[in-house]
Parts: sequence; C-alpha cells; structure tokens
Amino acid sequence: MKKKIKKVNASILIIGNEILSGRTQDKNLVFISNWLNSKCGITVKEVRIIPDEEKTIIENILLLSKKFHYVFTTGGIGPTHDDITARSISKAFKIKYEFHKEAFAILEKYYGKKKFNDGRKKMAKMPRGAKLIYNPSSAAPGFITKNVLSLPGVPSILNSMIENCKRYLTKGLQIHSKTLSLYTVESNISKKLELIQKKYKKFVEIGSYPFFRLGKIGVSIVSRSTSLSKLIKVEKEIIKLAKQKKIKILKI
Amino acid sequence: MKKKIKKVNASILIIGNEILSGRTQDKNLVFISNWLNSKCGITVKEVRIIPDEEKTIIENILLLSKKFHYVFTTGGIGPTHDDITARSISKAFKIKYEFHKEAFAILEKYYGKKKFNDGRKKMAKMPRGAKLIYNPSSAAPGFITKNVLSLPGVPSILNSMIENCKRYLTKGLQIHSKTLSLYTVESNISKKLELIQKKYKKFVEIGSYPFFRLGKIGVSIVSRSTSLSKLIKVEKEIIKLAKQKKIKILKI
Repeated sequence: MKKKIKKVNASILIIGNEILSGRTQDKNLVFISNWLNSKCGITVKEVRIIPDEEKTIIENILLLSKKFHYVFTTGGIGPTHDDITARSISKAFKIKYEFHKEAFAILEKYYGKKKFNDGRKKMAKMPRGAKLIYNPSSAAPGFITKNVLSLPGVPSILNSMIENCKRYLTKGLQIHSKTLSLYTVESNISKKLELIQKKYKKFVEIGSYPFFRLGKIGVSIVSRSTSLSKLIKVEKEIIKLAKQKKIKILKI
Repeated sequence: MKKKIKKVNASILIIGNEILSGRTQDKNLVFISNWLNSKCGITVKEVRIIPDEEKTIIENILLLSKKFHYVFTTGGIGPTHDDITARSISKAFKIKYEFHKEAFAILEKYYGKKKFNDGRKKMAKMPRGAKLIYNPSSAAPGFITKNVLSLPGVPSILNSMIENCKRYLTKGLQIHSKTLSLYTVESNISKKLELIQKKYKKFVEIGSYPFFRLGKIGVSIVSRSTSLSKLIKVEKEIIKLAKQKKIKILKI
C-alpha cells in the first residue's frame, strides 16, 4: 500500500512596515501556526517579515512558493496605497491583475452600490484565476494563487477566515506534542537530555525552554513527533531522568 | 562637507522551533526594533524566524550578514542540545568554535567552580575573536561576530542586555514618526492619502492601519521619516484632508 499522507510544510510571509518597526505586535504567526499544526498536520518551517515594498514581496513570494508546500501571506490586501500584496503576487507569477467577478459582487453587495468607492473596489482586484477565501467578518475575501494563500493583517478578521483555507490544503501527518515542566535549571539536565534526543533523533524533536513561575525557575521540555508511541517513550525517559535527579515535575 | 550620518539598517534572525510552532509568542522583535529605531536610528528591514537547524542557521547568517549592516540573532545560546547558534555562526564564517576566556571566567565566577558543569561551560563557547555583550541579569554573555550580534531568546534577559549592544553599532539618522488617528474607514481616505504619499514619496513613508476603539472604527495613519520638517508637512496635509471630509481626529 502506498503511503498517502506525508509531511506537509508551509511558510508565513508577514507583509507590513508596522510589524517590522515594532509599532504593532504580530499575533497572526501564533494563530496560523497552531491552526495548521492542530487542524491540518502542517508544520510552519519558516516565517519572514518584510516591508510593503513590491520588489521585496515579489522576491519572497517566488522563493518561498518554490521552497514550501504552502505560503500564507498576511497583510496588504486592504483599500489603501500601501496595500500591494495582490498586485505584487500577480507580478511575481506574471498573471494579470484584474477585478475578480465574484469578489466584486460580494463587495458591491456588502457596501451597496453608492458606497462602493474606488478604495473598496481595489479589494476585488486579484491575480487572474485566484480562488476566494471567504471572509465572514468584513466581506473582503482573501485568495489563493497557485500555492500562496493571502489573508488580511487584522487578526480578528484573519481568525474568522482561517477555516475557509482548509478546502485548499492537503493534510499532512498530525504532529503530536507533549510538554513536561521540570523544576530545575537547563544545565542540570542538558547532558542526559542530549542523549535522549540523539536516541530518538529520527522521530522526535525535543526542545528545552526555561520558565519562571511563582518565583520558581523551571524548564519546559517540549517533544514533538508524528509518532505518538515514540513520543510516549521519550516522555517516559524524561520522567525517569527527573526521578534520578530528584527533580519535581510540575504536571504531566 | 561630507555627509557623516547615513541610513543604517538591520535584520533580526529569530532562531527557535518554539516560535515557529506557535507555542511561544515572540516579543523580542517589537523590543529590538523599537530600541534600534529610537536609540540608534537603525531601521529593521527584514525579520526571519527559522528552526534550530544548523544548515538553515548557516544559510541565513551568511545571507543576512551580507544584505544588512547588522544582524541580530535571538535564541539558541543556552546550555542545552538545541542551543546551536554559536556553533552555527562559527561554521558559517569558518571561524574556530572555542571557549572564550573572559566569558568562561565570568560564568565560572557566577556559578562557582563546583556548579560550573558542562552545560554551563557550553555557554562560554563562541566563534574565536567574538566580542562580548554583557548580561547583567543572568551572566551568560551574548557576543558579536563580524556584524552579527547574538542575544538570548528569553525576553527579560535580552532586554537587560540591549544597552550593551550600543558600543558595537554605528548610529544612523534618527527616524521620526507621527501618528494621526482618524474616525473614518480606510476607503474613505485612501485616494487622497495616496496622492499625499506620492507627493512625499522620497522622504516620508505613510502607512494606514484600521483600529477599533470603544466600539468605533478608525484608521491610524503613521508617517515615518528622517526629516522632521517633511513629516510636519505631511501631518498638516492629513489634518487638512480630515477637515475637508469632516472626519474627527482622535489625537494629534
């Protein structure tokens, strides 16, 4: 029997001077990555944050769309002059940038003919042949061009649209994750943890992250794998290590 | 007279599976970018978030260090097996990866000889010739290799170290910023705003960001420039536009 499900990856291209300058805290990466992970078995392998500059957008779209199964763009699909994502994607793929009939109709209906001004009409312009990602919160749709899914930058709107991306995505193997929080310092377990990581190198990815909680120092050990059984084995080894070193475990 | 101060740029390379997977919300980009902007006149032009993978780190270090004046790395300089930033930078630049005498002495003093185990010693290993970025909060120093400044991933520690980066940075022209918040929708002003942007294209970068505040919808218009006089002119034009359209301004 052929293996039908495989590892599927994605990258996120965050477009916006306001994120780069530190004015606005990005919240979309956490949301998209968690959703892709838990709902689609897709792993985000790279994120780039770039300014609203056509040349830079084009370069990154071309590169990332070759390198990963999917590219999610956020930002730059609104009505103002600095919203140039749709036009830049058209240029990147050398596809005509034009009004999308259905998007135009959706927006015209939403705003009413009188209030459907040029800025709003701009939101219906996309690369020819793009398929729509419907927007239940503010009408203006996102769109998919080849393997590039374009979403808005405003988190509440993006969040409302994410489920509508599903139909365009091939699911990957689900990635399971287990976290063990140990009341110790990293350097106390680093050597043994490295041995465990080496042993399960091919199957499980182990990360170690210091935390501070109620005045106590600890380390969260996060293991991730497509194999739940391997993950459970790793968890057992970490619990064993903690017992040997008499380290209190916060929760299992 | 020669122009002594110029535009200086930087990129940030965030290294860490926990950020990519959406488990941890990055907070360092906002902090570093704001600090560079306000204290050093340095603009962040690109951010990349990548996994703890040697090959990926090496590729990005080489590329970004060529493309920008400075590269800030965050994450991967702790004591555990997944902390491979220092070793990867050494490999990228083909510099020996070895104990840094002063860093070793700092850490040995901090932990005491008895508790200075292998994991902790690892934090003193760096590319040969690296200069230290002192760490007032948890001793383990960051370091600069060529134009690459390496900082830890834990925000509170990074924040405590940032001032110690200053001595290694050439200051750029200060970037001023003005924000006007208008109680209107983007599409109502997008056309006129585009004309203002075109007029001041060379000097001022204008961004437009929708907001929701106390149940009201508005748009924040952020103008950024190294020229304060040009910025004031743009601000006046936006205020004029708001008056013409009878739009209430939230604050000036």
